[in-house]
Amino acid sequence: MHHFDLCIIGSGSGNSIPDDRFAGQRVAMIEKNPVYGGTCLNVGCIPTKMFVYPADLAASPAQARRLGVDLDLDGVRWADIRDRIFGRIDAISAGGAKYREDSDNVTLFRAPAHFVGPRTLDTGTGEVITAEKYVIAAGSRATLPDVPGLDQVTVHTSDTVMRLDRQPASMIIVGGGFVAAEFAHIFGAYGTQVTILQRSEALLRQEDRDVSRRFTELTARKVDLRLRHAVRRVEPLAGDRVAVIAADAAGAEHRFEADVLLVATGRVPNGDTLNLSAAGVEVDQDGYVIVDDHQQTTAKGVFALGDVCSPYQLKHVANHEARVVQHNLLHPDAMITADHRYVPHAVFAEPQVASVGLTEQQAEERGIPYVTAIQEYASIAYGWAMEDTDHFAKLLADPDTGLLLGAHLIGPQASSLIQPLIQAMSFGLPAHRMARGQYWIHPAMAELVENALLALPLRNRQ
Amino acid sequence: MHHFDLCIIGSGSGNSIPDDRFAGQRVAMIEKNPVYGGTCLNVGCIPTKMFVYPADLAASPAQARRLGVDLDLDGVRWADIRDRIFGRIDAISAGGAKYREDSDNVTLFRAPAHFVGPRTLDTGTGEVITAEKYVIAAGSRATLPDVPGLDQVTVHTSDTVMRLDRQPASMIIVGGGFVAAEFAHIFGAYGTQVTILQRSEALLRQEDRDVSRRFTELTARKVDLRLRHAVRRVEPLAGDRVAVIAADAAGAEHRFEADVLLVATGRVPNGDTLNLSAAGVEVDQDGYVIVDDHQQTTAKGVFALGDVCSPYQLKHVANHEARVVQHNLLHPDAMITADHRYVPHAVFAEPQVASVGLTEQQAEERGIPYVTAIQEYASIAYGWAMEDTDHFAKLLADPDTGLLLGAHLIGPQASSLIQPLIQAMSFGLPAHRMARGQYWIHPAMAELVENALLALPLRNRQ
Repeated sequence: MHHFDLCIIGSGSGNSIPDDRFAGQRVAMIEKNPVYGGTCLNVGCIPTKMFVYPADLAASPAQARRLGVDLDLDGVRWADIRDRIFGRIDAISAGGAKYREDSDNVTLFRAPAHFVGPRTLDTGTGEVITAEKYVIAAGSRATLPDVPGLDQVTVHTSDTVMRLDRQPASMIIVGGGFVAAEFAHIFGAYGTQVTILQRSEALLRQEDRDVSRRFTELTARKVDLRLRHAVRRVEPLAGDRVAVIAADAAGAEHRFEADVLLVATGRVPNGDTLNLSAAGVEVDQDGYVIVDDHQQTTAKGVFALGDVCSPYQLKHVANHEARVVQHNLLHPDAMITADHRYVPHAVFAEPQVASVGLTEQQAEERGIPYVTAIQEYASIAYGWAMEDTDHFAKLLADPDTGLLLGAHLIGPQASSLIQPLIQAMSFGLPAHRMARGQYWIHPAMAELVENALLALPLRNRQ
Repeated sequence: MHHFDLCIIGSGSGNSIPDDRFAGQRVAMIEKNPVYGGTCLNVGCIPTKMFVYPADLAASPAQARRLGVDLDLDGVRWADIRDRIFGRIDAISAGGAKYREDSDNVTLFRAPAHFVGPRTLDTGTGEVITAEKYVIAAGSRATLPDVPGLDQVTVHTSDTVMRLDRQPASMIIVGGGFVAAEFAHIFGAYGTQVTILQRSEALLRQEDRDVSRRFTELTARKVDLRLRHAVRRVEPLAGDRVAVIAADAAGAEHRFEADVLLVATGRVPNGDTLNLSAAGVEVDQDGYVIVDDHQQTTAKGVFALGDVCSPYQLKHVANHEARVVQHNLLHPDAMITADHRYVPHAVFAEPQVASVGLTEQQAEERGIPYVTAIQEYASIAYGWAMEDTDHFAKLLADPDTGLLLGAHLIGPQASSLIQPLIQAMSFGLPAHRMARGQYWIHPAMAELVENALLALPLRNRQ
């Protein structure tokens, strides 16, 4: 039985851990998926944004014509886009695997592994190994709901829908979170007829309620958005076409047909595939590996990071946790803690959404005193240039200290414009000081943030 | 002779001073231009950016096609764009004037004024007034170089070129600063054949040398860029067409012809129109009104702000100085000082440029120790999505303290992405702490800044 100093399960953010400082350690690396590099690189953030940016361009003629610029969309070359994107990504993925395979101190096992005892792992390749320390970075996976007929049809998730042979003429998306929103933007802008079936009354329900409401309204202008629709069953049609029967709020059934069915109803952590109990690693009621502030699990010497232990399900959180784990592996006597105070996220749809901190409904539920301000893009010079009418920034702040509690942007460049707000929250800079203690280039888009800060009805504006 | 508590010369940023807190003061407001509201609103930042944004859209097909999206530009409706923009701006300008005219405590004089003695002003309307305090906010104006024949042809500056009857088929732009760059982008993207005649060897020479060099290279791909070309004379042609004869570096003369000639060779402060010496107000060798940290001129009770006293020639600086003057008028015993430490600016061309702090050549000249890092957009995930190959962020920092000395971005969203860097410089946040003490949304464009910060070879990375 081979013994290793370190075993890392998962080649996503886990892959960033073994650097030069681990050259003296024997490292086992486990990846069960045929592609190396994890969700973000292969089926997540990276390829989706590579599909989103062309969608932004494809969607631009409507706005351009309104402004006096006659842009026309002649067509979108799906196969060219897909092959350009995966030609790049697959090569990076293969290169990452080869780098580890060629490494003197790393042994790569490419099979589904599971624990068989404390610090003892069946690698799934016929070999059982032990290791002094473990890092569980096994990620998460898309799940399918329990719907009659789903096993009788071709179902796509975010894992497969980006590799479709051809762009579908029509698509039904089940779900209303960020994955549904991003793919509705991508395929809708490319020219696919998109229908969204969403169980609840709004899209992006985790966002601040004003953002969720506005996003829902704007999406309803572009796709066939069916809210309060519960999927009852699905049926196969000719070819790979699919029928979805959903019940509306009144219980009446409606039938939807499309070339492609995309299910985007959520992801679950992969801990359940690892027989964690054999290793003494506990999970919470939602299946997330339980970790302390040092990213240590309940089993000594076993760390975890990323989607397998973190409900954030965000690559930048996984990367941060990977740096914490890396440090703590190298400096067991001077361990550092992970910082989950102000974790932002973005939805790269049309419009973009970006958010950090408390939503208004969270502040209310928790009884936290707050003031709020909403600033429309239409109120700033760059918003005039765009003739924007739809988008805004919303801030929440402590009325006494002026410290920001939350920031929620919906509109162009939201994922860029939010960064100074994340910075202010992370370093404790009060709103009014942030607004007045620095210059904001006129007439840049960041004036949206400046003006939102100034609009906060703080008790103390110093 | 009417006596006022306060006289404000110029209705740009000066117009923001009299608010409710001045309700008890008799205020004279002077504006010599037929349009009210100053350069930014009428002929500067606001309309130019309203022309730039459609240009960004009009320029997008080339990139879109490269990415698999077949966008075509059918045409640009110049008259529609112009009328939409000035329909909006002229109404704001007229509304601003009317608001002051209708105000009980403000008297608006719409003529070219000049001082005739200490605190004594000939308003140009036939009336001479005195005032307890003055604010000189008279701005700057575009200048024309001393070129033979210039008085024989139709010459446009930024004051007039946005109101052209029709989009010209061809345009010669003399100059290579930000005004030249922005109009080259606007008219070039709209379909005008643009020739730039620039005396020196690069465009945007005030920018960091790497930014200037890259911007020059990229512009040369899109317009007929003639560097080291000195304009010798101009000649009228049929219609309003113009010929420009320029000498290259070797002294050989070349002839350029176009429908429109735009001269963008600089601006001068308007102090010379005001007979300032009669008021005891001194100017420097470049004609800027001399002010102290409180924005006080050399004459007691006379303040100045904006382009008339500030070589920055930036609206956000004028606005800041207006707030300082406003405070100091209201609180003469508790005056505050203006903050000119970290003044950013942007060029809204293609590509965008944004900058704050020292350029590398400034750091060199001043003998300031620095380290630098250049981060290409191509190195971050969002840059992959854009298939970017041309753009970058460049940072300068103190190698010992890690404090940022300068930040220079050239590329998409530069004017938004720079804001967290302005914030860090303004509040003294060292580079490595800035990078690691907050989350950066993956894969948002702001990762460019994160990675640039991490690339700085600092001695101390805490």
